[in-house]
Amino acid sequence: MIVILKPHPSDDEVRNIEERVRDLGYEPHTIRGEVRTVVAAVGDETTHQSLETLLSIPVVDRVMPVQQKYKLISRETHPDDFVVNVGGIPVGGEVFQVIAGPCAVESQQQVLEVAEHVKGQGACLMRGGAFKPRTSPYDFQGLGEPALEMMARARDAFGLPVVTEVVRESDVELVARYADMLQIGARNALNYSLLEAVADTGKPVLLKRGMASTVNEWLLAAEYIVKRGNRNVVLCERGIRTFETATRNMLDIGAVAIAKKETCLPVVVDPSHAAGRVDLVEPLAKAAIAAGADGLLVEVHPCPEKATSDQAQQLDFDGFTSFMEHIKPYIDLAGKKFGPINR
Amino acid sequence: MIVILKPHPSDDEVRNIEERVRDLGYEPHTIRGEVRTVVAAVGDETTHQSLETLLSIPVVDRVMPVQQKYKLISRETHPDDFVVNVGGIPVGGEVFQVIAGPCAVESQQQVLEVAEHVKGQGACLMRGGAFKPRTSPYDFQGLGEPALEMMARARDAFGLPVVTEVVRESDVELVARYADMLQIGARNALNYSLLEAVADTGKPVLLKRGMASTVNEWLLAAEYIVKRGNRNVVLCERGIRTFETATRNMLDIGAVAIAKKETCLPVVVDPSHAAGRVDLVEPLAKAAIAAGADGLLVEVHPCPEKATSDQAQQLDFDGFTSFMEHIKPYIDLAGKKFGPINR
Amino acid sequence: MIVILKPHPSDDEVRNIEERVRDLGYEPHTIRGEVRTVVAAVGDETTHQSLETLLSIPVVDRVMPVQQKYKLISRETHPDDFVVNVGGIPVGGEVFQVIAGPCAVESQQQVLEVAEHVKGQGACLMRGGAFKPRTSPYDFQGLGEPALEMMARARDAFGLPVVTEVVRESDVELVARYADMLQIGARNALNYSLLEAVADTGKPVLLKRGMASTVNEWLLAAEYIVKRGNRNVVLCERGIRTFETATRNMLDIGAVAIAKKETCLPVVVDPSHAAGRVDLVEPLAKAAIAAGADGLLVEVHPCPEKATSDQAQQLDFDGFTSFMEHIKPYIDLAGKKFGPINR
Amino acid sequence: MIVILKPHPSDDEVRNIEERVRDLGYEPHTIRGEVRTVVAAVGDETTHQSLETLLSIPVVDRVMPVQQKYKLISRETHPDDFVVNVGGIPVGGEVFQVIAGPCAVESQQQVLEVAEHVKGQGACLMRGGAFKPRTSPYDFQGLGEPALEMMARARDAFGLPVVTEVVRESDVELVARYADMLQIGARNALNYSLLEAVADTGKPVLLKRGMASTVNEWLLAAEYIVKRGNRNVVLCERGIRTFETATRNMLDIGAVAIAKKETCLPVVVDPSHAAGRVDLVEPLAKAAIAAGADGLLVEVHPCPEKATSDQAQQLDFDGFTSFMEHIKPYIDLAGKKFGPINR
Repeated sequence: MIVILKPHPSDDEVRNIEERVRDLGYEPHTIRGEVRTVVAAVGDETTHQSLETLLSIPVVDRVMPVQQKYKLISRETHPDDFVVNVGGIPVGGEVFQVIAGPCAVESQQQVLEVAEHVKGQGACLMRGGAFKPRTSPYDFQGLGEPALEMMARARDAFGLPVVTEVVRESDVELVARYADMLQIGARNALNYSLLEAVADTGKPVLLKRGMASTVNEWLLAAEYIVKRGNRNVVLCERGIRTFETATRNMLDIGAVAIAKKETCLPVVVDPSHAAGRVDLVEPLAKAAIAAGADGLLVEVHPCPEKATSDQAQQLDFDGFTSFMEHIKPYIDLAGKKFGPINR
Repeated sequence: MIVILKPHPSDDEVRNIEERVRDLGYEPHTIRGEVRTVVAAVGDETTHQSLETLLSIPVVDRVMPVQQKYKLISRETHPDDFVVNVGGIPVGGEVFQVIAGPCAVESQQQVLEVAEHVKGQGACLMRGGAFKPRTSPYDFQGLGEPALEMMARARDAFGLPVVTEVVRESDVELVARYADMLQIGARNALNYSLLEAVADTGKPVLLKRGMASTVNEWLLAAEYIVKRGNRNVVLCERGIRTFETATRNMLDIGAVAIAKKETCLPVVVDPSHAAGRVDLVEPLAKAAIAAGADGLLVEVHPCPEKATSDQAQQLDFDGFTSFMEHIKPYIDLAGKKFGPINR
Repeated sequence: MIVILKPHPSDDEVRNIEERVRDLGYEPHTIRGEVRTVVAAVGDETTHQSLETLLSIPVVDRVMPVQQKYKLISRETHPDDFVVNVGGIPVGGEVFQVIAGPCAVESQQQVLEVAEHVKGQGACLMRGGAFKPRTSPYDFQGLGEPALEMMARARDAFGLPVVTEVVRESDVELVARYADMLQIGARNALNYSLLEAVADTGKPVLLKRGMASTVNEWLLAAEYIVKRGNRNVVLCERGIRTFETATRNMLDIGAVAIAKKETCLPVVVDPSHAAGRVDLVEPLAKAAIAAGADGLLVEVHPCPEKATSDQAQQLDFDGFTSFMEHIKPYIDLAGKKFGPINR
Repeated sequence: MIVILKPHPSDDEVRNIEERVRDLGYEPHTIRGEVRTVVAAVGDETTHQSLETLLSIPVVDRVMPVQQKYKLISRETHPDDFVVNVGGIPVGGEVFQVIAGPCAVESQQQVLEVAEHVKGQGACLMRGGAFKPRTSPYDFQGLGEPALEMMARARDAFGLPVVTEVVRESDVELVARYADMLQIGARNALNYSLLEAVADTGKPVLLKRGMASTVNEWLLAAEYIVKRGNRNVVLCERGIRTFETATRNMLDIGAVAIAKKETCLPVVVDPSHAAGRVDLVEPLAKAAIAAGADGLLVEVHPCPEKATSDQAQQLDFDGFTSFMEHIKPYIDLAGKKFGPINR
């Protein structure tokens, strides 16, 4: 940590800071400049307490961390990619996966139709919402457990492992009974107690970035899960909130590249929620692949105009067929194998 | 709802939209412009399903809601202020309340000292964190139940009802046993299952706005709680996330004025988290009072430099004494009574 | 400056950095931590070149400045408030000024009516747009020079100095012939050539913050003007752009407090552009006064519904009368004298 | 336009609105809902005045435009791509162009070296800054006219047309004498008088998006130029300002896709300014190509660590060689021809 003092501190003030730095387990090195004085505090910031306590001392102007706080997921520690096994399907490493399905599960028939179609086009995992967090309490909130049963039947029929969101700690066990991968949605991206509950199931976790989360907060949320002993985390970039309203969220393609570079975790992208409109799903998906993503999470519905949610951004079957055809060359070019290795 | 079609729709396309609008329970009124055609859909948007399903029809360009989605907390419905009773202390209406205390509860002595001091200066409610959501899993997360016990003893000693955050559904019952008011933090602002669990205790709820929440989302989160039958909601503006880093969060003073105008709920402001630095707490607090706030949530610590969190933004005792002295004339000027009515 | 190296640098790499730091005119002090090494570069950052050149060396992770870049406007250098004389009216220091007038000048009669009314309510300066920067090329762009003449006549009639925006370098001389204070609008907040042209007139400058400007960028824009030898700069906070659309811009009340604290320049607030709606102008204005502002810039129009721009945010005469009555006690409470000292 | 009234308007209020709508040249169609009443105003919004004047009438709640304001650049009007001829090199349409060069021109040798290298790798246009807008007045501001001369000589030597920024109206003529394409930088993105001055030269214009500009504002800025009779506009997305600091700006890949879809103008992407760091330039560039960009603007310097600005984001020669090699297959896959058609 670097502690920057206000201009022209007295000797006593500097000695006081040095003592406190020592008390917190670091070794102080003071450098006096013409105007400013800085105290460099040497020590491992990931194991010692933060020096931010010094901020309350009037002579301290700023405290700047030098190290990143995450370490279990850091590429510095783990140079090799983690590959997460989701119901027998590898995510990360050399393969590229498409996780497809409806925003919300609406009926058994809907799920079966979607599963059959997306599998036919090369998706190896199925998504579908059983519990939907909605901005308004008057909007459709998902079918709940029956939806989980429907997806489980579709998995049995078509061999597609199920990815679904859990929004409630008390539902974690229930959802984990049916699902192969538990999704943490953007609204719960910093809901650490849900992250821990999900981590403790040992199941793979799809961790979406929050609408206002920095890359650093997103990666530290992943660290929360891995710290519980569950390394099966897949990061999902789905766009953040900015002043721009032309897209539903702003896909942060740089965050995809950074997450790949700084961590060993697989990174997938959700172009459907970023775009918020069907016609942009494909360009955003291609951009994600080109930037290094390990997979995509795409909304597909047999008849989007009759969907109970996210009508504007779900692809229909023809749209998905064409989408898959168009993105495949980009997957090849990025040097990834499409689908499960052993196909 | 207003459904805007793309330029030059065919008659069949228009008829199709009209039919769907009718199917969804609205009456369509079509107006053909020189370039664009719009279909106005007449009906109560808070009880019928959303017309956003139409967005998936290619000829539809945009769907614009006309009504707000919240109604239980709307001033249109309830012209009079709700007054929320927190352990015998009224929040909202004619009074102005200061809720003060440490960021995190650290010891029995700390809490007792703070309670005594803040009560002496006119605070009628005490805050203190027992469960702290922290960005890094390596940071101090709060003392948990022992902290709740410490605050309960301070309440018994000084008659200050306790406001404390709950971060975990499974803790709601525990926290509700000790606390007089349950706080939903910014990270859980859209964690609807936690909102509902807290609502169901019947206890007063302090609902912070999320870092990326629009005013509309914040008010709809309150609607979630009131819809469960718990009207005891106090809104808390604490700043949102923007590109500016000079303050920790950007206090949205306009949101305070809007929330007062559009809803019947009390609105308090947390200048400590907005500022992130001690020297800005007072100007932000005065601004909040001037804009119509019903109270403040302020961090106070006997020795901020030894605090376990938020060191830079907690007032010490002298600072709080001076703070209270300086803000009181603003409370008077705003036409509010300071503290409990019956004092 | 602090130069942070990537983990485990070699001795050669460190020596290389030290040499470059010395080449750039600083003295290097190297501190080797357990994981990271930092090189503190001692020297005056406002006179030497930036060390950011080091960022291109692979072993360098980050470069962090220690000093602020502005100095001519810094309170460290100038502890006393600058008072800016605008056509005989002081802005800053002990007084509080209201600058009022229409968004755009539309006719001689309009300007005269507004000038008479706002002067009667205590405004000492008049605003009015002659050149309007508009998002669409199809919108009304201002009357130009005739508008300047109309305002000059109103000034002569009522003794209200004129504040008006200049949007074009080639118009600076023209506008300076008529106006008492030149306004730089939000869109031109970082248009440094316009800032310099305006500075060179020697006239007082009202410098609005840009929609995406940090406080640091805003203050450095002021430094550009003062560096040309023109100290007559008044800062104007008018809201920034965020994800929130409930207000037109988000008033950054913390920025007002920071600008007052860190610089010696007067700070005024434009609640009209921040609010974007008439009913929020008053609460935002009160908040601005409470946070320490030295004045307000308010839009007033005889008949807002017939205005050529900003219809939703201009006060009518009754509205302005009531507004002034309501804000005066806040000005008193903030310890400011209302209007010119010698009244 | 759609005019939404507040709940339960009186008949007189509705009639008043209808009259005003008629006065403004639209035909009113009133639809009374259960709670709300809306007045649809039929007429061409790009030629009539805005109905926003109605916002000042108390019974009016909101006014919503139905049409986009830009028309000259709209794909609705011009289904075919504009191809902009820059000194004989086509930008847009079937070709993909790389515009490469240093952030700032520093010496004749530097420019010649860069021009030779980037041409050898396939760039057909050269960039380089002669006038640099810098946040601090104490930073290097460019060499000015001598830099323009140096680039002109490099163009003559290597046949690479020159793209350079103009920051000052009074420099437009000067810059236009040397440059083949005039760049409007992000800080001047809404500096309409500079846009018009540049438009009037008839030279091709590279129009960067502002840090806080919406897509709509960016496209309307282009409309300003085209409305002056200069159709030679190339849009440039370079990232916007958000809360995220991991990249210098956040590349809005969705904006690239939207601009391609809604307008007939070529769209290029500047991955260097978006990334702010060398290691992310390539993934962002690939993403841009995949999303449909027509070209790239890339910073290249013979020795970035000795550069006078943007040291962290400029590629060195080896870096650029490798960059070009890696992006070429993406250009092929996107179906674009690399470089000038007639090569």
